[in-house]
Amino acid sequence: MRFRLDIAYDGTDFSGWARQPHRRTVCGALETALGLVLRRDPDDPVRLTVAGRTDAGVHASGQVAHVDLPADTDTGWLAHRLARVLPGDVRVLGVRGVPAGFDARFSALRRHYVYRVCDAPWGVDPLRRQYVVAWHRRLDLDALADASHRLLGEHDFAAFCRRREGATTIRDLQRLAWRRESDHILRAEVSADAFCHSMVRSLVGALLAVGEGRKPASWPAVLLSAAVRPSEVAVAPAHGLTLVGVDYPPDAELAARARQTRNLRRTPAS
Amino acid sequence: MRFRLDIAYDGTDFSGWARQPHRRTVCGALETALGLVLRRDPDDPVRLTVAGRTDAGVHASGQVAHVDLPADTDTGWLAHRLARVLPGDVRVLGVRGVPAGFDARFSALRRHYVYRVCDAPWGVDPLRRQYVVAWHRRLDLDALADASHRLLGEHDFAAFCRRREGATTIRDLQRLAWRRESDHILRAEVSADAFCHSMVRSLVGALLAVGEGRKPASWPAVLLSAAVRPSEVAVAPAHGLTLVGVDYPPDAELAARARQTRNLRRTPAS
Repeated sequence: MRFRLDIAYDGTDFSGWARQPHRRTVCGALETALGLVLRRDPDDPVRLTVAGRTDAGVHASGQVAHVDLPADTDTGWLAHRLARVLPGDVRVLGVRGVPAGFDARFSALRRHYVYRVCDAPWGVDPLRRQYVVAWHRRLDLDALADASHRLLGEHDFAAFCRRREGATTIRDLQRLAWRRESDHILRAEVSADAFCHSMVRSLVGALLAVGEGRKPASWPAVLLSAAVRPSEVAVAPAHGLTLVGVDYPPDAELAARARQTRNLRRTPAS
Repeated sequence: MRFRLDIAYDGTDFSGWARQPHRRTVCGALETALGLVLRRDPDDPVRLTVAGRTDAGVHASGQVAHVDLPADTDTGWLAHRLARVLPGDVRVLGVRGVPAGFDARFSALRRHYVYRVCDAPWGVDPLRRQYVVAWHRRLDLDALADASHRLLGEHDFAAFCRRREGATTIRDLQRLAWRRESDHILRAEVSADAFCHSMVRSLVGALLAVGEGRKPASWPAVLLSAAVRPSEVAVAPAHGLTLVGVDYPPDAELAARARQTRNLRRTPAS
């Protein structure tokens, strides 16, 4: 049976989500903990599928993954055991059974990120310095909003993506809104159907150049015509970024879809 | 001239506020930074007077200290230089000249602390685990509020203080309010004219025993009659505690007081 895991982590001491040999990764920590708790044979490890493979240093408060486990797995017991086995910088906030049609990666309709910058002259709040980037020049919220608005909609975001052979860079940017979370902390809320690699950080990097007055508000949108990332677009630091949530269709819809797929498979080709 | 410093720090890697030989302390880090920036002779070090000498591991977002410096000290320059010299876990949020009557410790009317606990079954939010204490049993907000209310007012808080010879333990507890900051994070807001040593953490320790149902709501107030801290009162962990602010009289009142004191001194004894 398929189970959904809701996950939060502090990305500071992880080399990102994706499992890598000899590196401490979020996926590695979770799969190891699941293997321990479920007493799985090391030759048959637990494998997670995730909504967003976050980079090294990026945090999450609303990451989602799925895993296939025996149908009689007690989710309450599993969550309780994981809380004891996992390190403090990664937590499983919930475990629940989902329809077979649920896929943490491919069923996701929308991903939501938040990026935080502090423009205080004295640096960044010491209690939040691991999650907020210090920006030593004052940022203009109106300029940020103006430039962000021009990026909304479906575009080829190649100028804001790390290039990967063959992969599409067309994305639907549905939300890119800035507000002051406190006197000195600015927060960008960024949502899209999906993001290509380093896209949020590149968008934020370009927008901060506008916010501090180095570039006009029209500049980031003009870059949308570029086929590759121009060298002027700085990728903003990873530790300001947090994956805060992922949207999925309702369970009933996923279950109906799974039934449809099964029926199609059963129908003999005519 | 006297200057007021508004200070924030992450207490995790400090052995508290008070300067101690061979230990990393907040006061030590600040006095060293001030000495460097002001090019002071090591034999004539800068000395800070603070509102609340926080313990090891306790954080601050609104600590206040004062220091006497030459009247022509440029506060903007000083704040800017300190931001560059200080480590990231301590920040000076503001520097300003104050009347001679201002004393960070003795002029303070009221200190405000916040204590945070997370009662989620899965542990504590990884992004806040350095500032929020994990409490593995569900806490009852109504019971916490009831027990807290009975502690308000002027009492001898000896039962909630680390004993110190000769020092009074009579304090005026003006506020002790609990609320859910988010689904799983509870926040206690605690204000008094002053606090004796480990008082907030002892109060919180006793109240959490009520919140999880181990003790009746009447229990903490009953302890107020004890002359020393009963062994049943657990001191809650330091890292949940943050000093969030200190209240002072308006500058004009402090200036008037300073003038009065000078005049009294000048009046010959009759």
